[in-house]
Amino acid sequence: MIIGRSPIMEDQLIKIEVNIDNMNPEHYSHLLERFLQARANDAWLTPIIMKKGRPGILLSVLCAETLLDMMRELIFKHTTTIGIRYTKMDRLICDRTFKIVYYKGLQVHIKQSRYQGNLVNESIEFDDIHRISEVTGESYKLISQRIWSIVKAEKLT
Amino acid sequence: MIIGRSPIMEDQLIKIEVNIDNMNPEHYSHLLERFLQARANDAWLTPIIMKKGRPGILLSVLCAETLLDMMRELIFKHTTTIGIRYTKMDRLICDRTFKIVYYKGLQVHIKQSRYQGNLVNESIEFDDIHRISEVTGESYKLISQRIWSIVKAEKLT
Amino acid sequence: MIIGRSPIMEDQLIKIEVNIDNMNPEHYSHLLERFLQARANDAWLTPIIMKKGRPGILLSVLCAETLLDMMRELIFKHTTTIGIRYTKMDRLICDRTFKIVYYKGLQVHIKQSRYQGNLVNESIEFDDIHRISEVTGESYKLISQRIWSIVKAEKLT
Amino acid sequence: MIIGRSPIMEDQLIKIEVNIDNMNPEHYSHLLERFLQARANDAWLTPIIMKKGRPGILLSVLCAETLLDMMRELIFKHTTTIGIRYTKMDRLICDRTFKIVYYKGLQVHIKQSRYQGNLVNESIEFDDIHRISEVTGESYKLISQRIWSIVKAEKLT
Amino acid sequence: MIIGRSPIMEDQLIKIEVNIDNMNPEHYSHLLERFLQARANDAWLTPIIMKKGRPGILLSVLCAETLLDMMRELIFKHTTTIGIRYTKMDRLICDRTFKIVYYKGLQVHIKQSRYQGNLVNESIEFDDIHRISEVTGESYKLISQRIWSIVKAEKLT
Amino acid sequence: MIIGRSPIMEDQLIKIEVNIDNMNPEHYSHLLERFLQARANDAWLTPIIMKKGRPGILLSVLCAETLLDMMRELIFKHTTTIGIRYTKMDRLICDRTFKIVYYKGLQVHIKQSRYQGNLVNESIEFDDIHRISEVTGESYKLISQRIWSIVKAEKLT
Repeated sequence: MIIGRSPIMEDQLIKIEVNIDNMNPEHYSHLLERFLQARANDAWLTPIIMKKGRPGILLSVLCAETLLDMMRELIFKHTTTIGIRYTKMDRLICDRTFKIVYYKGLQVHIKQSRYQGNLVNESIEFDDIHRISEVTGESYKLISQRIWSIVKAEKLT
Repeated sequence: MIIGRSPIMEDQLIKIEVNIDNMNPEHYSHLLERFLQARANDAWLTPIIMKKGRPGILLSVLCAETLLDMMRELIFKHTTTIGIRYTKMDRLICDRTFKIVYYKGLQVHIKQSRYQGNLVNESIEFDDIHRISEVTGESYKLISQRIWSIVKAEKLT
Repeated sequence: MIIGRSPIMEDQLIKIEVNIDNMNPEHYSHLLERFLQARANDAWLTPIIMKKGRPGILLSVLCAETLLDMMRELIFKHTTTIGIRYTKMDRLICDRTFKIVYYKGLQVHIKQSRYQGNLVNESIEFDDIHRISEVTGESYKLISQRIWSIVKAEKLT
Repeated sequence: MIIGRSPIMEDQLIKIEVNIDNMNPEHYSHLLERFLQARANDAWLTPIIMKKGRPGILLSVLCAETLLDMMRELIFKHTTTIGIRYTKMDRLICDRTFKIVYYKGLQVHIKQSRYQGNLVNESIEFDDIHRISEVTGESYKLISQRIWSIVKAEKLT
Repeated sequence: MIIGRSPIMEDQLIKIEVNIDNMNPEHYSHLLERFLQARANDAWLTPIIMKKGRPGILLSVLCAETLLDMMRELIFKHTTTIGIRYTKMDRLICDRTFKIVYYKGLQVHIKQSRYQGNLVNESIEFDDIHRISEVTGESYKLISQRIWSIVKAEKLT
Repeated sequence: MIIGRSPIMEDQLIKIEVNIDNMNPEHYSHLLERFLQARANDAWLTPIIMKKGRPGILLSVLCAETLLDMMRELIFKHTTTIGIRYTKMDRLICDRTFKIVYYKGLQVHIKQSRYQGNLVNESIEFDDIHRISEVTGESYKLISQRIWSIVKAEKLT
C-alpha cells in the first residue's frame, strides 16, 4: 500500500545562524524541538571555539523564508543572542512515498525516496520504531532488523 | 543611567570561510582576537574531519563587506590557507542600550537588548566581570551572581 | 557455516593518551592505521580545546599492556608529542562467531556476537562490503541492505 | 526551609567506555536517559574520529561498580558494540542541601553545594524551571533570572 | 625550476550541505575521497548535535556549479540523505607555482602561493611526503623537516 | 649552547575529570590558564553531548597527585561543578634539553626531546615565537620557518 506523495521539488529555504557564547547549556534542552514544532525543516547545534578560548555553540535553523519572523522570535525568546544572520539556499529534494508494513500488528511507515524516478533511499520512520519499542520493550536495533526482514520478505514474494 | 544607543538594524555582512588542514595548532593562539581587533563582528573555529581522516579546522569570520580585503590579508598572513570563500548574509540585530551599576565601587555595564521595543536579553559585559575578578580575586561565577542581585534590587526599588 | 570462535573474555588492556597541540594535521593521515597494524585494539582522535584557545587533538590508543613499548615508539616517531600517559582498563567482550553468506558469488562474513550465550549483535564485516563495492560499483548502503535480505531469507527457510 | 542533606563524600565509581562506529545515529535517541534511569551517575557522548576517517562516538557511563552488569546489559541491548572497557575513578563530591522558594506559587528547589562547610555552588534545579515553563510559557532564561532575583531578595531581607 | 602556473583568480563556487542523522558511520569510509575524485574543490564532515540528542554529521561539498548534478548523484547514491541544499560562494585564490627539490633522489613539489605578487604561503605537497615515507620508512615529521632544510639551504646559496 | 636538562622519567600523575552542563561559556575564559599557573601538567576542554541533548563540556586536568586539593579548590571556585572524579595514570616522558639560537638578535629556545638517547622531537618554544611576533609584527608562520632555517643552517656548518 502506498500513501502520500510529494512531487520532485526544487525550492528555496533560508538558513539562519546564531553564535552563542553566554548561555547556560541546560537551556538548550528542548530547544531544537521548538523550531521543528514551529515547522522549521531542521535545526541543529555545532560545537565551536570562540574568542578567549570559549567553547561556544553555533545554532542553525533551516526553514521557509516566510517563517523568518517566527524563528527570530523563538531565538530571541529562548537564547541569549541579540542578533541573527541568514542566507538563502537552494534545495533539491526527493519525491517521497510511504509504504506501510506491519510489525507485531503495529503499523510501520517505510519511506521510499526517489529522484527522477530512481529509488534513492529507503528508511523506516524512526517515530514508528520508537513507538513499537515503548510497547514491546525491544531495542531500536532489533526492531529495525526485524522490520527490514519483513520489508525484504514482501519484496521476494 | 542609560548610555549609548544603537537603533534596530537590518544590515548585511559577509561570512568568510577557510578550511585549514596543514597549520600547527599553536599558530591559532591569538588568531581570533586579530580579526576582532580589525573590527570583524565575530570569528570562530569549527573542528571538522577532512580528507584522509585529517582533523582540520574551519575558520569563519563575519564582517562588513568593506573589510573583506583587510580580513583576506590577515588570513593569508596568519594562516596556511591559499584561498578564501565568502557569501553575503542578511542580519537582524537588536537595539542595545547600556545601564551602569556599581559593584564594590567598580563600574559594570548591563547590556539591554530590545527588538521592536521589547526587552529581548539582559547581560553583564564580560570584560567588566573579568576586570573586577582581577581586582577582587573573586570568581566570574560569584561576581555575576552578585551583580545580578544588585540589578534586581534596583528594579525592586 | 560457522567459522572461528573466540570464548567469552574478561581481560585487561591499557589506554594510552596523548595531547597534541603542535602537529600539522596532514601528519594524522594514516596515523590510526599504523597503530591498528601494530595490533592495537583501537585508536582514535578526539578534538579538544587546549590552552590559549588552541584546537588540539587527544590521541587515544587501546592495546595489550605488552604492546606499550611498541606503541610508545610509534607515537614518538609519528607525532610531535614528548610524553605519553596510560592507565589499565578492564574489559568484557562478547564471544564472536562468523557466519558466511554469498552475495553475487562473493564471500561475506556476518559477525555474530554473544554474551553468556545470548545473541547481542549481528553485523556485516565492513571490509567485505568495501571489497564488493570495488567489484560491483554499488554503494555500501545498497550492498548492506541486500546482504541483510539474504541473511534474513536464510533464517526464514 | 532546608530539605534533604547528603554528607561530604569521597567514594569510588567506575567509568565505562565504548567506541561506536557502526550505529545509526537515530538509535542514540533516548539512550543517555536509559542509563540515568538505571541509576548511572552520568552518561554522555563524545564525537571522535576513528579509523578510515569515520566519525564515531565514544559513549561514557559513570556509575557505581555494583551497576556494572546492568549497564553492560543496557549497552549490549541498545548499541552495536560487542565489548566494553571500564576503570575505577575516585570521587570527591560536595554536601548538597536544597532550599525551597516559590515562583508564581510553584515550588522551586535551589541546590546549595558545600565542600568542607564552604558554599561552593548554588543552582536552580533545571527540572523545576522546565516544569514552570510548561505552565507559564515563559522561557528558561526569563524564569531563571526571576528565580535568582527571588533568591537574592530573600537573602537581603 | 618552476613548473605550472595558475593566475590570480576570483571565481564562484557552490557549497552543498547535507545533514545526516541516520547513516552507519562505517559508510563514511572513502566518502570524502569520492567527491574529490569527481573534482570537488573540497569535502568535509562536521560533527553536529541534532534533534533528540542525536550526534549527526553535516556533510559539506565545495565545487564548481557545473558539478552540482554529479555531486547530487554521488550524495544520493552514497549517503542516506534525501535532499541537498546549496548556495553560491565567491572565492579569492592565490596564484600557485611549484618548485621542485630532491630528497634522497626523490622529487618533491614545493607549492608557493602568491597574492598580488607577494609570497603568501609555501608548503610541501603532502602526497610527496607520503610517497617518500613509503619508500624510506621515515616519519612525515622527519621528512618535512629535512625537506625544509633543503629548501632553505637552496635559498641561502 | 645547551641549557637545562631533565632526566628520562617514568612517573605517575592523576587525571581529574569534570562534566559541566550548566556554566555560561564566557566563564571558561582564562580557566585553563588558571590550572597551568597552579602547576598542572595540562588542562583541556572536550565538547560532549549530555542528557536532554545538551552540549556540555568535559574539563580534564592532568597534575601531580599532591596538587589534587589545589586543583579541586580551583574547580569548585571557578566552575559550577559540585563533584570531581580522578584516576591515576602512569607516564613516560622524554628527556628534554634546550638549545638556544638567535633570530634578529632575540633569543629562541629549541626544545630537543630524547627517549633512551634518541632524538624524538625538536620544536621551537611557542612563547618565544609569540614574543618575537610582538616585536617584529611578523606572523608565527614566517618566524617559525625562518627559525627552522637558522637551526638547520647551524647543523650544516
